[in-house]
Parts: sequence; C-alpha cells; structure tokens
Amino acid sequence: MKEIIDYIQNNINSFQEELKEFLSIPSISMLPEHKDDINRCADYVADKLRSAGMSRVEIFKTEGHPLVYGEWLGAPGKPVVLVYGHYDVQPAEPLELWETPPFEPVIKDGKIFARGATDDKGQIFMHFKSVESFFKVDGSLPLNIKFIIEGEEETGSASLESFINNNAELLKCDAVIISDTALFDEGIPTLTYGLRGLSYMEVEVSGSKADLHSGTYGGAVANPINILAGMIAKLHDKNGRVNIPHFYDGVLKITSKEKENFKRLKFSDKRFAEEAGVKLLEGEKGYTTLERVWTRPTLDCNGIFGGFTGKGAKTVITTKATAKISMRLVPNQDPNKISKLFTKYIKSIAPKSVKVEVKNLNGAYPVLTPLDNPATIAAAKSMEKAFGKKIVYMREGGSIPIVTAFSKKLKAPVVLMGLGLNNENLHSPNEHFNLNHFRLGIISSVFFMKEFSL
Amino acid sequence: MKEIIDYIQNNINSFQEELKEFLSIPSISMLPEHKDDINRCADYVADKLRSAGMSRVEIFKTEGHPLVYGEWLGAPGKPVVLVYGHYDVQPAEPLELWETPPFEPVIKDGKIFARGATDDKGQIFMHFKSVESFFKVDGSLPLNIKFIIEGEEETGSASLESFINNNAELLKCDAVIISDTALFDEGIPTLTYGLRGLSYMEVEVSGSKADLHSGTYGGAVANPINILAGMIAKLHDKNGRVNIPHFYDGVLKITSKEKENFKRLKFSDKRFAEEAGVKLLEGEKGYTTLERVWTRPTLDCNGIFGGFTGKGAKTVITTKATAKISMRLVPNQDPNKISKLFTKYIKSIAPKSVKVEVKNLNGAYPVLTPLDNPATIAAAKSMEKAFGKKIVYMREGGSIPIVTAFSKKLKAPVVLMGLGLNNENLHSPNEHFNLNHFRLGIISSVFFMKEFSL
Repeated sequence: MKEIIDYIQNNINSFQEELKEFLSIPSISMLPEHKDDINRCADYVADKLRSAGMSRVEIFKTEGHPLVYGEWLGAPGKPVVLVYGHYDVQPAEPLELWETPPFEPVIKDGKIFARGATDDKGQIFMHFKSVESFFKVDGSLPLNIKFIIEGEEETGSASLESFINNNAELLKCDAVIISDTALFDEGIPTLTYGLRGLSYMEVEVSGSKADLHSGTYGGAVANPINILAGMIAKLHDKNGRVNIPHFYDGVLKITSKEKENFKRLKFSDKRFAEEAGVKLLEGEKGYTTLERVWTRPTLDCNGIFGGFTGKGAKTVITTKATAKISMRLVPNQDPNKISKLFTKYIKSIAPKSVKVEVKNLNGAYPVLTPLDNPATIAAAKSMEKAFGKKIVYMREGGSIPIVTAFSKKLKAPVVLMGLGLNNENLHSPNEHFNLNHFRLGIISSVFFMKEFSL
Repeated sequence: MKEIIDYIQNNINSFQEELKEFLSIPSISMLPEHKDDINRCADYVADKLRSAGMSRVEIFKTEGHPLVYGEWLGAPGKPVVLVYGHYDVQPAEPLELWETPPFEPVIKDGKIFARGATDDKGQIFMHFKSVESFFKVDGSLPLNIKFIIEGEEETGSASLESFINNNAELLKCDAVIISDTALFDEGIPTLTYGLRGLSYMEVEVSGSKADLHSGTYGGAVANPINILAGMIAKLHDKNGRVNIPHFYDGVLKITSKEKENFKRLKFSDKRFAEEAGVKLLEGEKGYTTLERVWTRPTLDCNGIFGGFTGKGAKTVITTKATAKISMRLVPNQDPNKISKLFTKYIKSIAPKSVKVEVKNLNGAYPVLTPLDNPATIAAAKSMEKAFGKKIVYMREGGSIPIVTAFSKKLKAPVVLMGLGLNNENLHSPNEHFNLNHFRLGIISSVFFMKEFSL
C-alpha cells in the first residue's frame, strides 16, 4: 500500500489541476440553458472513468440528464463496490457575492473555490483518483468496482430512481459508497449514519384576474401576498414546531445512547452560529442544536415572490403570490404522506376569497443506517488509518434523495463517507473544498478498497 | 357655446388621433431607463400647450422629472383656473397580459387602450382640447388659465411639492381643477370630494451573511422569509383591522349624512367583485364595501421577494427577504406619523435573530374638500349640462399626493373632476379610457370655463 500512497502524495498537484477542469464546467441541472454544459460534463466524467481504468464506460440517456456508468470487474470472487456521486451542481446565484467567478476554480489557503467543489465534484473525484492510483501502481484493483454518477441530484434524482429499479442486475453490489456528506470537523474522520428526508412544495395563492390599484380596491379584496404570509405564519407554532396536523406522527425519538454521543462531540453553538453568519441560533424549543438539525423535522420557506418587486413604490394588489416551502424529514416520516398532509393543511387555512394551488416539487426519504455491517466497519478502519484519528459517527441535516432507492432495491449497505465540511458554502457563494481532505479522501478510498477486499 | 360644442363634436376623431401620439410615449417615471422618454413627453406636453393657445409655456427642470407650465392671462378681472395633471405613467408589467402593446394605442369598442389612457394622459388632454376649441372658435378664453403638468405623480410628486411652495405667486389661482379620478359609473357626472392618503414602506429582514443550505442549517437558524411572513401576518387582526398601535387614532368617522348618501348610490358588491375579477369581497368587518374603500384606512403588501424564485427546488435559507407594504390613509391620519408608527411596530415584532430595515418610500395626505365653494358649484353645473344628468358626489380610495399641497399653499379650492372609470385597469394591463367620457370631459371643461367666468 505504501507505494500507492506515495503515488498519491507525489501526484496530488496534478490531481488538483485536473479537478479544476471538472469544476470549470457549469453543469447546473436546474437551469435548462445549461443543458449543453450538463452533456459536456457527462462526457467529461465518462472520459475520466476510462482513464481511471474502467473496462466498460457507458452514458445512459434519460428523460432528464445523462447517467454515467463505469465498471471494472477484474477481481472474480471479490466484493463489488458501487460508488455513487453526482456531477451536477446548484445554480451559482447570487453571482455578485462570489469573490472569484464560480466556474473559474481558484486555489487559495489550501482550498479550491468553485461551484461544486465540495458538492459533489471534488468528492467523486477522490474515488476516480483512488482507482486510477491502484491501476498505475498495481495494474489492478483488489476488488470489483462500479460507478454510477448522475446529473440530477440537485433537482431530485428523478431519472436515477427508475434506472436503479430497472437495472438492479447491472448495479448489483455488496456495498454502496457515497461521498456527498461532511466531516464532523476539520481533520476528524467521520461516517454519517443518518440523513434527513425532504418534501419540497410550491404554493401559489391567487386572487383577482389582473393586478388591481390598491387605492381603488384596497380594503375590499383579498390580497394574495398578505394571505400567503398569513398562511406561512400558521405553519409554525410559538415553540417553533411545525403546525401541520399529523406532521410528527411516527417521528423516531432520539435514543439516550445517541443523545450521549451527541453530547460528547465537540460541538459549539457559538462556532456554528459564526459559521452560519448569524447573530444567534433559533428553532424548535426543547432540543439542542445538533438534535434539531440531525433528528428533528423542520419547515423552511426557500423562496417567495409576488407583486411589484422593482425599485420604488408601485401601488398594486397583485393577482398572485408564490412560496417555495420545504420540509426536512426524519425517520419514520414518509415524504409522500407529508406532502399530502401539507397540501391538505395549507388549503384548509386559505380564505375562500383566494385560490390555492400546491405542487410537490421534490421528495426524499430520511435515512438511518446500521453501523454493524462489514462495509461500514471497513470504511471506519480506512478513514482512521488515513487520518490517524478515531472515527466519529454523526447524523446530517441534509438529504441525499437516492440513498433509499439504493438500499431498498440493491439490498446493499450504504456507507456515507463524506469529506466535505458544512462551512464550505455548499449551495451558496464561494463554495470550496479543503484540499487536505481531498487528499485524505483519496487515501481513505484506497485503504477502503483494500480493507473491504479482505 | 353651441359653436364650440359643434367644433368639438366635429373634431373629436382628430383629437383621438392626437391622443394616440401622447399615449405612445412610454413616460414611465419609476424606471430610470425611461428618462429620455420622460423628457420627450415633457416636450410633447409643452408643444401641445403652445398649440392649444397658451401665451407662455415653460419647462421647469427639477431634481426629478421636468414640470411643464403653461398660461394664458388675457382675461383681466376674470378668475384664474389652474389645471393640474401628470404626463408620467405606471410601469406596464406584466407585459404578457396586455392584449395589445401598452405603448401602441388602439381604439376598440369606443375605448382607447394604452398605458396612461385614463391615468392621466387621456384626462389632461381633455383640458388641452377644451382650451384649444375656445381659441379656434372664439379666439380667446372667458377666463384666465394656468397649467401645471408634472412627470412624477406615480412616484410621489417629490419635485412638485417644493415647486408649489417656491412658486406660489406663479401658480396663484381661484380654483384648481384636477381630472385624475373616476366617475361613479359610466355616464354619471361625478365630483369627488374625498381621497385617501398613502404611506408606502419597504421592509427588509436579514439573517445570515450568505445563503445557507436548508439541510445543514434548517431548524437551527432564523429564516428571514418565514419571519417576514409572520410579521406581515401580525399587521392585521382577525377582523381585518390594521394591528399597528395608534393606527386608528383620530380617524374621522363617516357622518350619517354621508352614510345615507352612499346607500343611495347604485353600488353593487356583485358588480364590483366582477370588475375586480375576484370571487368575493373581503375586508374590515362592520363596514360596507364603499365605506371600506372610501373612508377606512387599509394595509396591503404590494410586493414581496426573497430566496430562490426560479424554477425548481433550490434548498436554501436566504440571507434576506423584502416586502413593499403600503397603507391607504383617511382624514385625519398623517402619513408622517403613520410611517413612524409602522416602523416602530414592525421592528417591535421582529425576533432578535434578524435585522430589520425599514424605508419610507412615499406618502400622501388624505383629502376631504367642502362642496359649497363657487368652483365646485360651477363644476357640478357644467358636468350636469354636458352629461344631461344629475351630479353625484363621491369619495375615492386612491390618493393624489399633491392635492394637499395645492389647497394648503395656494389656498384655492381643489375640484376633482375626473372622467375615468375604476374598471379601466389603471395600474394594470389593458388600461383604457372610454372615448365617450373623453368627449364629455372636453365639453364639461368648456362649460366650466364659461360657468366659472360669470
């Protein structure tokens, strides 16, 4: 193994330069005008899998963006590992807040800055380079490997789910490795065993057929903005709990063992608030911050718009107002049930004077994985070896919609071996990835391939 | 007089064609990119005043948009009438809802369609043509006339107020005529004696320094959109009353005589709702619709925006959310006091986790004018003669910010002789002006000049 590790240490600079190429492709899955960039990025991933040593690489067209598949099955009798990741990224807006352009990667203070650096291009690149290093030094891998890299994670993985269901044999494996989560802290080897789910809704409240003059009609007609605001206000009670009937039905309570484990983690509210850039933290009463973001369901408006939003003072009563509202879910909430409960409740609190339309934009199941399977054990050992520190187990507030599809359909354990940090501005301006973690991630991946093959 | 009326009837088609020229200039005062159009429109108004027979025409530059002044003082010993109007218009958005382009005027079914048709270009044009007709037929006017036509009415008449205060001698007059309000109904001669005032505010709620991932931080930090929505919800109580402390202090109650008068007007809630394009009317409990829009103060959100407003499902917690909120005021509310009460209250209901900034964008005093002055009496007689029907006195829910400045500084009665209709889509797509009212407005203006000169 020493030779491979040396190879990685000696080539890390060129790995970083290559990563810059990957990061310079604006593969924004949400915006139709980037469709060509998405296709170009899928081709790029396919090329990288080929040059990493995969014996079969294929781009699967879907109704949405292409899926890239790669495999090397030259180790008969050895386990099969499926590495999942995504090459698509979030939109970069607001652009004016980026210190350097989002698709012109820059290395500064040991970090690489670009949209997608930590979520998820930098992290999938670790496994490309781990595999490539094996081939360069040993000429082969100690186990069999498959890659499935999608381009729709940031929009809900719509195509991948049916692809998994229709291609269970192709994707068959003994473990799924996903590097799309965060370390608990800088330099701390971490495995994530819980993810929150998601239910993402859009609510449109409409009143009059055309905009109305607020002088002529103010006081006589429903105002969709005021009404939408009132409806949003009713979604929480005064203790910060979500106010939707049956929302908390079946929510899995945190165990006393987990509670103790959370307390032992070196977590600081003050530092978390600083990283978030807020004056103070707030949320549901009766829970610590870690409990709230890892184990409690929440509801947030992600966007709102309606009426006159330009400069100045236009006196209109608008025809409609729209809010994007998402809920993070925890075991055992079901996103389909939650979206129905949401729809029913939000319609029930609307006055008769307006029309309410509700769309379900996106959903994901929450995840809680057992820690006693061989893949997780191997991953823990590998990361401890790479980092030279004891592993930490944590949960995570975000969602990876596809995890449930993998575990249910492929019946393989999913290992969340993320190397990001939560303060690396994923989904916001100046996203970056710690290059020391990039290096340790490649090494962890190499150790894992070996460890899991034994 | 018959000769002049005949002249108007014979030339009405060419007047309409001329009005089209005026309406084709996109003189949108609110949008800086239309500054050239505004200047072009001021020049156009000056030309029209010259060709109407004014002996002195002057364009006054201001810190904002130009004021156009015109006068003819060739009737010594006779009263002086000051006609006020505005050549600026509201923005035309949303453009996709216009059946014909907003600045390409079209005549259809006896109406002229264009932004500014009824508010206020069509209405000031009536007086230009009234005066012109006198000169064409008689060679002179029966009284002295001054015009002051501004380009900032839709943004709050900021320059005009100080112009009036600094030029009281220039504008000195015996009556101010304003045609910028509506008839009670089609074909009903109407004078308006009350206007609501306005206080227009902008509220910005900000939380974190950068957008945050709603998975990582959801449940731990303040969400500016949710908070702003909650604050807006607190601005009304369950009876539809504005919830700001001291908001109703000193509000003038409707007299029993007015109440009786309102009841006699042929007003239909059903028709009003149809015109507004809403399923049903709503508002403060305990008042009729006319009472609510004419005599009660109200609060409406005119715009709201924050977070992700594109297509799809971006899971962010935004840094800030903004709402434009305006209040219509009634005698004896003071817009300056109200804006202070609003600011104090909205800051008081914000949680400590966010920063709240409040801007006062615009204000106007409410108006209630006595009906027993010679100018109002002359206007009533003239409209009755032109329409062949009994005059109706009404109040109006909208605001004309400058009325108070005229009545206070010039100490002259203000006559609100509007020829619009409230369903002519002022401030919204497909604005239009009834061309029969345009003709009757010119004739009413002619009768008034004669009547008031006696």
